[in-house]
Amino acid sequence: MNPEDFRHFGHTVVDWIADYRATVESRPVLARTPPGAIRAALPPSPPDQGEPFAAILADLDRILLPGITHWQSPNFFAFFPSNTSGPSILAELLSAGLGVQGMLWATSPACTELETHVLDWLAHMLALPDAFLSSTDGGGVIQDTASSAALCALLAARERTTGGASNEHGLAACPPLVAYASSQAHSSIEKAVKIAGLGRTHLRLVPADAAFALRPDALLELIQADRAAGLQPFFLAATVGTTSSNAMDPVAALGPIARDHGLWLHVDAAMSGTAALCPEFRHFFAGLDFADSFNFNPHKWMFTNFDCSCFWVRSRAALIAALSILPEYLRNAATASGAVIDYRDWQIPLGRRFRALKLWFVIRHYGVEGLRREVRRHVALAQEFAAWVRDDPRFELAAPVPLNLVCFRHRAGDAANQTILDRLNASGDLYLTHTRLDGKLTLRMCIGQASTERRHVANAWRRFQQEADALV
Amino acid sequence: MNPEDFRHFGHTVVDWIADYRATVESRPVLARTPPGAIRAALPPSPPDQGEPFAAILADLDRILLPGITHWQSPNFFAFFPSNTSGPSILAELLSAGLGVQGMLWATSPACTELETHVLDWLAHMLALPDAFLSSTDGGGVIQDTASSAALCALLAARERTTGGASNEHGLAACPPLVAYASSQAHSSIEKAVKIAGLGRTHLRLVPADAAFALRPDALLELIQADRAAGLQPFFLAATVGTTSSNAMDPVAALGPIARDHGLWLHVDAAMSGTAALCPEFRHFFAGLDFADSFNFNPHKWMFTNFDCSCFWVRSRAALIAALSILPEYLRNAATASGAVIDYRDWQIPLGRRFRALKLWFVIRHYGVEGLRREVRRHVALAQEFAAWVRDDPRFELAAPVPLNLVCFRHRAGDAANQTILDRLNASGDLYLTHTRLDGKLTLRMCIGQASTERRHVANAWRRFQQEADALV
Repeated sequence: MNPEDFRHFGHTVVDWIADYRATVESRPVLARTPPGAIRAALPPSPPDQGEPFAAILADLDRILLPGITHWQSPNFFAFFPSNTSGPSILAELLSAGLGVQGMLWATSPACTELETHVLDWLAHMLALPDAFLSSTDGGGVIQDTASSAALCALLAARERTTGGASNEHGLAACPPLVAYASSQAHSSIEKAVKIAGLGRTHLRLVPADAAFALRPDALLELIQADRAAGLQPFFLAATVGTTSSNAMDPVAALGPIARDHGLWLHVDAAMSGTAALCPEFRHFFAGLDFADSFNFNPHKWMFTNFDCSCFWVRSRAALIAALSILPEYLRNAATASGAVIDYRDWQIPLGRRFRALKLWFVIRHYGVEGLRREVRRHVALAQEFAAWVRDDPRFELAAPVPLNLVCFRHRAGDAANQTILDRLNASGDLYLTHTRLDGKLTLRMCIGQASTERRHVANAWRRFQQEADALV
Repeated sequence: MNPEDFRHFGHTVVDWIADYRATVESRPVLARTPPGAIRAALPPSPPDQGEPFAAILADLDRILLPGITHWQSPNFFAFFPSNTSGPSILAELLSAGLGVQGMLWATSPACTELETHVLDWLAHMLALPDAFLSSTDGGGVIQDTASSAALCALLAARERTTGGASNEHGLAACPPLVAYASSQAHSSIEKAVKIAGLGRTHLRLVPADAAFALRPDALLELIQADRAAGLQPFFLAATVGTTSSNAMDPVAALGPIARDHGLWLHVDAAMSGTAALCPEFRHFFAGLDFADSFNFNPHKWMFTNFDCSCFWVRSRAALIAALSILPEYLRNAATASGAVIDYRDWQIPLGRRFRALKLWFVIRHYGVEGLRREVRRHVALAQEFAAWVRDDPRFELAAPVPLNLVCFRHRAGDAANQTILDRLNASGDLYLTHTRLDGKLTLRMCIGQASTERRHVANAWRRFQQEADALV
């Protein structure tokens, strides 16, 4: 495709997306295609000869679109959002067009330096401790997901605790390590513990309190019992805003315990981290001074399309010691000088895209105040929705609503809630998902799309009421 | 940014990329900015209020572009390419615009089903064993990089060998595992061994032969010695086209050894896998019937922009057993039915982009014959370049040239080659990198850009000759 064809078809694709974004509201949110339907519509073999671009685009509409779940719909309230915005999409396009691979500083200084710079900006914007700034011993890096960030934190902690013996000789040669996280922590912590070779039975899922937050007293008891049994506690994952119910682990109370027992404290704020933009929500992040690492995902609630997960460490030396490799074919003068960052040593993969570009576009397009405005708008909508739930005697809130996630349920029990969930999702009017709290099926309504307005939330509540009426 | 503004600025960005692609040839390939220069030009604080889109784009030109190393230049011959194409860029744009997150089948059936389908297409296109097709017990998945694919293979092997005990109880409770790879294998194998908790000292770097290919006899000796010492061999990484010199490990000879000793055989063909499109190059892949997993990167040599690494396994059950998690908030009817693939269980992270779209666009745009034509063109250019080297008494080839990578050096020794390398890269006329073979500094010339024509390669050779003249 020559530059002129690219220009022509590029305009067509931009128009397609503009139209899609203008009309996505009217599409059924959850895809309705049964398993195998998309594949059945695709030819069994690839074409021998190239096809016209228009034919490919037509098949996107005809074959694929019915099988798309519309994550960017203003009526998408499921999971945590994976939201985006115009400036982010266009920066992703520029990143693809430049085609830069930023594994080393030398392979594109602008890719590395913009990333360091924007993560410093964000550290200030979220009022993170100075220890996470690149001007100190710490620094930030973009990971693909919070799962990968948690794994990197765990590996850095493993190497710090074993003095590098794990990387060198393996875990079989190390004291038995134990990690801790809340029973409400994200499944990625268990996955990381498995990947790192520690074994699931060496992860303690610490009991939570009535608000589903990790109990410091229970943590302390477990650590003491493990120590008494000759085990080596080394890692604590705390969550500011759990996936299940947006519970807030008390970092300020957990921090001293982690410090006293030599645990690496990783704080995962995958969605809720964005709230730290607003001073009035920063109390949820009290205690971050104790954290060895911190993570939040602009691809969840900061209008930066997936994937973009920001990860800071207090000691970049500890992270690099765990993940660094330097074969001959990657050696270069800049790396040897020590004056630059080579981000390949801060992550699991070697190669990396130019992801800082979209963060830079988003922050500049919205401005800090613009981002705060959106966060406050979403939180206000969620609080209003929670008030409607509270005022309807058929429903109950199932957990505190600190920010933009409302966990609630119909009082008639699991079957009724499953019916409401299934009927609403099948209707196409909205998409939401569930969790289980206190053993009960619980509906989750997460409000975080740039395009979600009050009318979408009000309509969702109307639909819940209708389905509640229909239960009888 | 509303849809109409998106349309307007989107056209501007498309035009920017079209112009960039039309003119990239004239830019110095390797960025010339010294460390810190980009950061120094960026404001220390983010803006409080949003800025006009045009101002952001202007700063892209003014501040960032001087710090870009132009990976898409036709004069980029460094590392392995990270090449791209118009249809791939536009598919990446569509993927960003749709904003789909495909962790589960249910979160967008089209994202999952197109991926399964296109990876089946590719398995046929590369003549991979039927055991890798989704209609069997195997199947394919898109990873970000070959590093992550190797890690997934290693974890699946670890769990298969330990019967799941490693995930459950940790490596301390398992027999001492040993992995094998060529001394020429990519550094990602060592990194994976460390991440998985095995320890670097449990990776045997098997000696290579004169062509830098793994020696089966040496492998067998090491396995036997390890067994005799009470260790448990479990994993072999073979490479079809090493990063250093494009060496071809003899998979057909290694396969029976892996089979006889119960090793998981992972075959990494990160760049050279694309060559299997052409029947005349498939002899390099003989023996894949023995492989438990196979990987190649369309983002290296198949015009699909980074990241896109295709990974197949013979037993998807083994991969899923190693990586599966299922918290309550991800449960859904489709997953429970067992009738669908949830790709979150095939990879390290949980979330995932709609990457199959760009593969689908690229394959349909070029057609199988069109892709073959490009591969053959690049191989022919590399062979012609190798002939020029062979015919110039000042230079020598440093390794066989099976495909599109030429490893060569000036006969005057390391200092002369370092001078040539530094001067050419500083000139901006081309960008190449080095390796070390037989202890000697060696220049690497890798030809794999869609936009590289004979004149670019001929000019590169002319520049080598000029720098050789200047040495005297």
